[in-house]
Amino acid sequence: MEITNLETPCLILDKSRLKKNIAHIHHRMKNRGVNLRPHGKSAKNIEIMKMALEGQSGGITVSTLKEAEYYFSHGIRDIVYAVGIAPVKLQRIVRLIQQGADITLLLDSPTQVMFVADAGKKNGLTIPALIELDCDGHRSGVTLENGLLVEIGTLLAREEGVSLAGVLTHAGESYQCKSVQEIRTMAETERAMAVACAERLHQNGLPCPMVSVGSTPTANFAEDLTGVTEVRAGVFMFYDLVMAGLGVCDEEDIALSVLTSVIGHQARKGWVITDAGWMALSRDRGTSAQKMDQGYGRVCDTAGHPMGELTVSGANQEHGIVSDRNRAELPWESLSIGSMLRILPNHACATGAMYDRYYVTDGSEKIEETWHRVNGW
Amino acid sequence: MEITNLETPCLILDKSRLKKNIAHIHHRMKNRGVNLRPHGKSAKNIEIMKMALEGQSGGITVSTLKEAEYYFSHGIRDIVYAVGIAPVKLQRIVRLIQQGADITLLLDSPTQVMFVADAGKKNGLTIPALIELDCDGHRSGVTLENGLLVEIGTLLAREEGVSLAGVLTHAGESYQCKSVQEIRTMAETERAMAVACAERLHQNGLPCPMVSVGSTPTANFAEDLTGVTEVRAGVFMFYDLVMAGLGVCDEEDIALSVLTSVIGHQARKGWVITDAGWMALSRDRGTSAQKMDQGYGRVCDTAGHPMGELTVSGANQEHGIVSDRNRAELPWESLSIGSMLRILPNHACATGAMYDRYYVTDGSEKIEETWHRVNGW
Repeated sequence: MEITNLETPCLILDKSRLKKNIAHIHHRMKNRGVNLRPHGKSAKNIEIMKMALEGQSGGITVSTLKEAEYYFSHGIRDIVYAVGIAPVKLQRIVRLIQQGADITLLLDSPTQVMFVADAGKKNGLTIPALIELDCDGHRSGVTLENGLLVEIGTLLAREEGVSLAGVLTHAGESYQCKSVQEIRTMAETERAMAVACAERLHQNGLPCPMVSVGSTPTANFAEDLTGVTEVRAGVFMFYDLVMAGLGVCDEEDIALSVLTSVIGHQARKGWVITDAGWMALSRDRGTSAQKMDQGYGRVCDTAGHPMGELTVSGANQEHGIVSDRNRAELPWESLSIGSMLRILPNHACATGAMYDRYYVTDGSEKIEETWHRVNGW
Repeated sequence: MEITNLETPCLILDKSRLKKNIAHIHHRMKNRGVNLRPHGKSAKNIEIMKMALEGQSGGITVSTLKEAEYYFSHGIRDIVYAVGIAPVKLQRIVRLIQQGADITLLLDSPTQVMFVADAGKKNGLTIPALIELDCDGHRSGVTLENGLLVEIGTLLAREEGVSLAGVLTHAGESYQCKSVQEIRTMAETERAMAVACAERLHQNGLPCPMVSVGSTPTANFAEDLTGVTEVRAGVFMFYDLVMAGLGVCDEEDIALSVLTSVIGHQARKGWVITDAGWMALSRDRGTSAQKMDQGYGRVCDTAGHPMGELTVSGANQEHGIVSDRNRAELPWESLSIGSMLRILPNHACATGAMYDRYYVTDGSEKIEETWHRVNGW
């Protein structure tokens, strides 16, 4: 099927770009002798995750239990659920473990250790958990300085029903970096902090088999990964305008786009109205804080090539407003009512979340496959 | 089931508030002798739309063809598809009409008239269309001044396969108003413009059976609706923080909230970490431009009562950061790890879109029903 036969709005995935992006990170990890534990929160799809797992040890990261159940149903056993555990989720986790999944949890408080241990004991299981580390003040986790690291480690090692799997950190602040050099520095901070915490646990006679770090920016620029056992990253598969603005990728690497139809002209204002509003593009405005604000997305033709300086400058629920960022005259002949455009997203995870499927091209304007997405919780 | 037995994050709908909000608008419309054509884009659910249709003439508005198909499958025939029509959507529309739906389209260009007429003729149908009017420069539509209004009206009346249903406008800029008085003025502008365009069509010997206006702010404050045949509104059923910030409702009227679990503390920073990030709350930051910035949402207890000055000050994909807007000490005893909170949304439509169902309470902490949502296109 030709791309222009699709109903709009819909989500297009360029498989040739996807493959290239995955190969790039695989190459980096191989050169550093580190395993990639791809994050399934961006793709939410098994075909993509299988590509991301090629040559790796087979473990993945997830952000929801729905992802965990879905990927496990497709044969993936080794799963890190990388969101701090809440008691209300333990029943589903126990069920997954009983079915044969190797689920590792994440926590950063003694309270969590105690309720996980309780669930383990009640069900005759030993549930492994990682201690979340805070390497950059981004959100959750314990620091090297406070006593919680060893306290939680000791509890995990001592209590029945639970075990200490290691440490995990995520340099979430790397999304705010202003230069590649800053990302390199942050990658080293992320690595050094995780390794120091692992050493602290060892010094206290505690095991630390996993030393897990990662974010797409730091995975792209980490120079040394000594002491790290695995790197987690998700959005690297697709990349997006935020990553391009950070210097992590080029616009031409972005594998995800939203196909939209032109539904109106406001010629006097230099506006083209499309049927991709924020419901189709997401409300994410990640590039608004960057040097180049891309609005709600960068406008490309149906072949995926950027058109002049066109962006989606405004969005309502089901309407997008396309204009030229320099207020230049629009190429009206390429923007006739009924014609189609492709919009590159600010944030691939947020835009992807608005869709239940990918229409997959091999880089041409032919749709070759339809791949499912597993949204929700 | 008790609300605290639900898995988080999930979407809670307070039916007692919903009923009160709907009754309020019904009362306003009745007093002004105008029919309400509720917009199905906020609810995306038949139970809610049936409540909104009580005492009205039975027609609805939709923002996607998926909504149209869903509502039609539940017995609603009179449907205005209120997004400018694109050629790629005509096949599904023709199918709906052939099945017995009364679909009315929206357009603002002669090009659109010609391709709708073409689809009508090819299928032996006469497809009714409304002319979209631009009353406030918000996005689409023709103005009274430019010649397109009569040109399009004449084409719609003359061409086979299509017919002129009337005019439609939406005062989208009312969301930016700074006072109730401004909203009242905008409601009158919306009404006057629609009525003037209808008169212009009549003066040119053209019919204009429908004069359709609406937005939740103007529907709440319009004083006179003379000449208008129907009012469209959607978010009034739920309301949200943006509407509360505009003075359209009170925080206590907001019927929609997201249930979340506390998964961590960063005590030194005054942060509570929850499992409702932007995937659960949406990326909408509509209150950021208002007097009171509510972050990613206002924090309530599980009974739905606001807690001090707590808001969701930050959000990652699956993590929310709760803090006090005045940096006051947090009520830690009410925020223990594993406890639950309810978050009022900036924009009900955007937050609702992240979920496939509503858990419905009668205003207590008991879940009485589960209602489905129809997302996507």
